[in-house]
Amino acid sequence: MAKEKLSIVKIGGNIIEDESALLAFLELFSNLEGKKILVHGGGKRATHIASKLGIESKMVQGRRITDAETLEVITMVYGGLVNKNVVAKLQALNTNAIGLTGADINSITSVKRPVKEVDFGFVGDVKSVAHQSVNKLIEADFTPVFCAITHDGKGQLLNTNADTITSQLAIGMSALYETSIYYCFELNGVLKDINDKNSVIKHIDSNLYKDLLEKGIIADGMLPKLENCFDALNHGVSTINMGNTAMLTKENDNFTRITL
Amino acid sequence: MAKEKLSIVKIGGNIIEDESALLAFLELFSNLEGKKILVHGGGKRATHIASKLGIESKMVQGRRITDAETLEVITMVYGGLVNKNVVAKLQALNTNAIGLTGADINSITSVKRPVKEVDFGFVGDVKSVAHQSVNKLIEADFTPVFCAITHDGKGQLLNTNADTITSQLAIGMSALYETSIYYCFELNGVLKDINDKNSVIKHIDSNLYKDLLEKGIIADGMLPKLENCFDALNHGVSTINMGNTAMLTKENDNFTRITL
Repeated sequence: MAKEKLSIVKIGGNIIEDESALLAFLELFSNLEGKKILVHGGGKRATHIASKLGIESKMVQGRRITDAETLEVITMVYGGLVNKNVVAKLQALNTNAIGLTGADINSITSVKRPVKEVDFGFVGDVKSVAHQSVNKLIEADFTPVFCAITHDGKGQLLNTNADTITSQLAIGMSALYETSIYYCFELNGVLKDINDKNSVIKHIDSNLYKDLLEKGIIADGMLPKLENCFDALNHGVSTINMGNTAMLTKENDNFTRITL
Repeated sequence: MAKEKLSIVKIGGNIIEDESALLAFLELFSNLEGKKILVHGGGKRATHIASKLGIESKMVQGRRITDAETLEVITMVYGGLVNKNVVAKLQALNTNAIGLTGADINSITSVKRPVKEVDFGFVGDVKSVAHQSVNKLIEADFTPVFCAITHDGKGQLLNTNADTITSQLAIGMSALYETSIYYCFELNGVLKDINDKNSVIKHIDSNLYKDLLEKGIIADGMLPKLENCFDALNHGVSTINMGNTAMLTKENDNFTRITL
């Protein structure tokens, strides 16, 4: 029996920061047909409020070091300020949203990252997704809105990368649905030529991916993203789409579709 | 047919502030049998973080004036910091909690309070409770944890008194359940003599309430609370209990039970 479709859409900090871009996106998201989940980050806002509170943001290898104070700010900003405003705005668009961290309904558990060369602090690597519990919300016609926070099941919240939450959620939900991911970012898609924003590669499959890798065509920043995409596809996710938010409209096909 | 029982427990800011008191309470709450909902405030923490952010807390008639900046702090602190930590701690106690504002699943809508002598700002008076939607969560074996935030349905979050949220939720859920409220506060219950903390009146019904009112026995601070209680009882709520958190244990009967 063919599985029903589920779309998981991830937006980054740049859309969250821009009130009118956020509203335009939420309208597109609300109009997206079928069952769906939203995942959001919110990084810059957290940095801004942390600095107002006199907490220094420490980054190592492009990642935030999450000490106890920083985790409090992240919990306030991602779980409270950003998540609840997104939920209220979706309600105004008649999307019956419900805001979640991984602690809510025990939806996403994680393990605190072991200390090696770097102590990332209260950062969690996803361990499990309670896809049956998340599905109870979806079956009740609610639209889950996840922020980038998980928990260890022992009372500790953990800061977790929003891209990872998206792919792990998608893998988990694939047990029940034909799952597609939409990674919304600034570019139109994966580019053949990093200097030409219109050089979007419209479809990447395993063969083309190998080919692009061998020819060294994929830009450095895109490599880990694509690796994660193929990992998700190899674990049950059907399709991954990368591009700007306009890819949620049916008229636009100028984005990158990735399949096995 | 007899309705199933539902307990709605409200805790105030003093328990939230005290880490060990909060943990002790959450254990009592987890052990409470049957279907249940938690409602929490979190006032002092918001005042503290607002002051760190350089936002002055303005109180009029004992109530917080909620300007745009203050609403942001409340959304961060109530909806994020307090709510998500309570949820994570309940998960550690095997209570499958889900944190909510009134915007989530459109559970509690409110109307921005009209400006008369005082402009309270972004403060909402409860308009409706989506008891069928809240019940979908309860039926899925999730335990809702509400913070003191509602929304107007047009994208605006609103600061709302936690006692009012509790009684309005209880009235709404009474359509489906035999509903009891537990108001946890510092006192052992309603006192006959304000100077004697052991003078708990164990049961107040409509007749005794009239009698106490006539004799002027009820302390000023308790009057509006009792008025709200009888309003809720007159709108379908079965029992209201007032006392310290120990009233959640079966052994303790030193608290005030209020019925029609």
